[in-house]
Amino acid sequence: MSTDTSERHGHYLEDLSVGMTAVYSRTITEADIAMFAGASGDTNPIHFDEEFAQSSPFKGRIAHGMLTASFLSTVFGTKLPGPGCIYLSQTLKFTAPVRAGETVVARVEIDAIDTEKKRVQFVCTCTVGETVVVKGDATIMVPRKADQRPVAA
Amino acid sequence: MSTDTSERHGHYLEDLSVGMTAVYSRTITEADIAMFAGASGDTNPIHFDEEFAQSSPFKGRIAHGMLTASFLSTVFGTKLPGPGCIYLSQTLKFTAPVRAGETVVARVEIDAIDTEKKRVQFVCTCTVGETVVVKGDATIMVPRKADQRPVAA
Repeated sequence: MSTDTSERHGHYLEDLSVGMTAVYSRTITEADIAMFAGASGDTNPIHFDEEFAQSSPFKGRIAHGMLTASFLSTVFGTKLPGPGCIYLSQTLKFTAPVRAGETVVARVEIDAIDTEKKRVQFVCTCTVGETVVVKGDATIMVPRKADQRPVAA
Repeated sequence: MSTDTSERHGHYLEDLSVGMTAVYSRTITEADIAMFAGASGDTNPIHFDEEFAQSSPFKGRIAHGMLTASFLSTVFGTKLPGPGCIYLSQTLKFTAPVRAGETVVARVEIDAIDTEKKRVQFVCTCTVGETVVVKGDATIMVPRKADQRPVAA
C-alpha cells in the first residue's frame, strides 16, 4: 500500500482559472551563477571572465539566460500549478542581460485552459525593475482532482 | 587600453556553415539535481520526494526539465558557436523524463544562417540512449570576424 501524498500536491485543474498569476522573485548572486555553471556545465567566459565580458556588447559579466528562465520552472513546480503538474513545453526570448545583484521577478499567468486535454497555457515574463529580461509561453498538463484515486480512510 | 581577449572567443559567423554540429554529454547525478534546485529555487517534490514521485505518472524522482535543457546553453556557450555569441531565443518540448544516473547527450545542429542579421538557427535535441527527452530550436546571434576591432600589435 502506498503512502498518501495528497497533501503534497499542488493545484488541480478544477482549482485553476484564466488570469490567475504567481511569482518567484530572486536576487541573482555570484554564488547562484557558479552553482548554475556547476549543474549545467556552462562555463562560458561571459559569466566568469570580467576581461572577456568587458570586451563583449554586455560590457561586463552576466548571468546565464537559462538561470533566469529556470525561475519560471520554479513558479510552475512550487506555486502555480504546483507539485503534480507536468511541464510539456516552454518558449523563451532572452530580451536583456541580467547581472549579479539584480532581482528577477518571474511571473506566470494562466492564458487558456483546455479542460478536455488537461492542458494549461501560461504567459511568462521575467523582469528586473521595469525591464523584461525573458519572455515566453508554457504549456503544462495539470491532473484533475476527479481523476485521483480515492484515499482509503 | 583593454586586454586583448580574442583568443578567448569562439567561432565567428564566417566560421559557420549549415549542418555543423556539437554535443555536450553528461550523466545527471543527484548532486546536479540538488545544485540546480539551489540555483533555481525549484524544490518541486517530484525531484526530491520519492514517496510523492512514486504517486506520480513518473513513478519515481526525475531531474528538472530545465536542467536537461540547460545543457543546450552549455553547447552554445562553450562549443558551437562558443564564447562571444548571444543567445536570443529557445523553444523547448519536454518529451520524456530523465532520472539520476542517466546520461544526456545535448546536440545542436546549424539549420540556417542569416548573414545579414548575423543570426544562426539551430535544431536542438537532448537524448538518453535512443529516447529524445528535450527538443527545440534556438536562435543565436554570432559576431562577424570582419566587424571586430583590430588589435594593436
